Amino acid sequence: MDKKQQDELKNKAAIRAAELVEPGMKLGVGTGSTIAFFIDALGKRKKEEGLDLEAIVTTSSRSKKQLEKWGFTVNELAEVDQLDLTIDGADRVDVNFDGIKGGGGALTMEKNVAANSEKVLWIVDESKLVDRLSGFPLPVEILPISCEQNFRRFRNDGLNPSWRMDGNKRFVTHYGNYIVDLNVDPIPIPRGLDDYLDKVVGVVETGLFLDMCDEVIIARSDGEIEDREK
Amino acid sequence: MDKKQQDELKNKAAIRAAELVEPGMKLGVGTGSTIAFFIDALGKRKKEEGLDLEAIVTTSSRSKKQLEKWGFTVNELAEVDQLDLTIDGADRVDVNFDGIKGGGGALTMEKNVAANSEKVLWIVDESKLVDRLSGFPLPVEILPISCEQNFRRFRNDGLNPSWRMDGNKRFVTHYGNYIVDLNVDPIPIPRGLDDYLDKVVGVVETGLFLDMCDEVIIARSDGEIEDREK
Repeated sequence: MDKKQQDELKNKAAIRAAELVEPGMKLGVGTGSTIAFFIDALGKRKKEEGLDLEAIVTTSSRSKKQLEKWGFTVNELAEVDQLDLTIDGADRVDVNFDGIKGGGGALTMEKNVAANSEKVLWIVDESKLVDRLSGFPLPVEILPISCEQNFRRFRNDGLNPSWRMDGNKRFVTHYGNYIVDLNVDPIPIPRGLDDYLDKVVGVVETGLFLDMCDEVIIARSDGEIEDREK
Repeated sequence: MDKKQQDELKNKAAIRAAELVEPGMKLGVGTGSTIAFFIDALGKRKKEEGLDLEAIVTTSSRSKKQLEKWGFTVNELAEVDQLDLTIDGADRVDVNFDGIKGGGGALTMEKNVAANSEKVLWIVDESKLVDRLSGFPLPVEILPISCEQNFRRFRNDGLNPSWRMDGNKRFVTHYGNYIVDLNVDPIPIPRGLDDYLDKVVGVVETGLFLDMCDEVIIARSDGEIEDREK
């Protein structure tokens, strides 16, 4: 599939997702190339049908700008009670609808938005679907204060950590922290690993999104769009 | 007991703690009025006996300044492999040596230092000793992004949250976050509450210090100093 065909497929999946947005909703919007198509599809609904939303929260300044270009007002999450629906991408999704996110480094913001959303929908292409969480390193956001200790801890515990880099310097998150990518493939017991990581002092958030996703729209390599609900 | 008597007692406890520091140690030093006496006692050992430490890490700029005044070089935690001993205060300590810290708002830094220390010793006066963790609100550091949602979550879950204030504004931590004080008294199942809080997306750290403290030096109201090891 060439770039043009891929984009057509992403756009088709994005349009399907945009159809699920209902007037008056409080909506969470993620980031990524497919989400960019989704925002355009949503913007067209606003322009053509006068689609009006009660609130929109997003996880990046890029999505924020694109939403504002279409005339949407973007809110801060803390201003909104509970989101009705969040639409985002994911780096991996398994058969239980558990996922890995954070390839872009915004896992903490994305997880806070997802955790405060009644329903979470991910748009992915077929290559992101896996039986067990695998094929993608697990990002973990950690505080600088104990970063060296925690890096060693992860290494000693067999989690094969590597520093997320930004050129030849460590990548710094929106919150001023570092990201360590754990190269555990496949992740044997995601819940066990998540429990372990939650207990490590200095871990801000992990890229394990467990029990968060309710629906997945899949852009299949045969050109079809598949909609799976949990 | 008047202020002068209290200070004498704190000083006596601090001197006892300073005697436990051995040459060449990597030492963690907390903050507080008793710790200020401890730093002076440590400084005197440096001056009189030439006490030399391999590294010192501290949890506040106030302690850092005082240590430097005595000629100690203060390191960043991440530079040090593992601390041998950390000496700090605590807001409450129970019979299992579990504690509540964070009255000063530096719980995240204090917990990172304690978590990376081979041994943790707290100096407290007798009033901080409790059978079960009680008599002090439990501080929880939370990210601003989802702070309103988490405040409501804590309220709905019966944890009686209140915002830590700094005058008429919310207190902001070293990491740019807020503190919510949970007014659960006594804390029925500290481990259960800690597990619950660890799972809340947006919680950075809690003031529950469980399985961290190994020794407590107690300044008793009868003027005696008691040393309890776990």
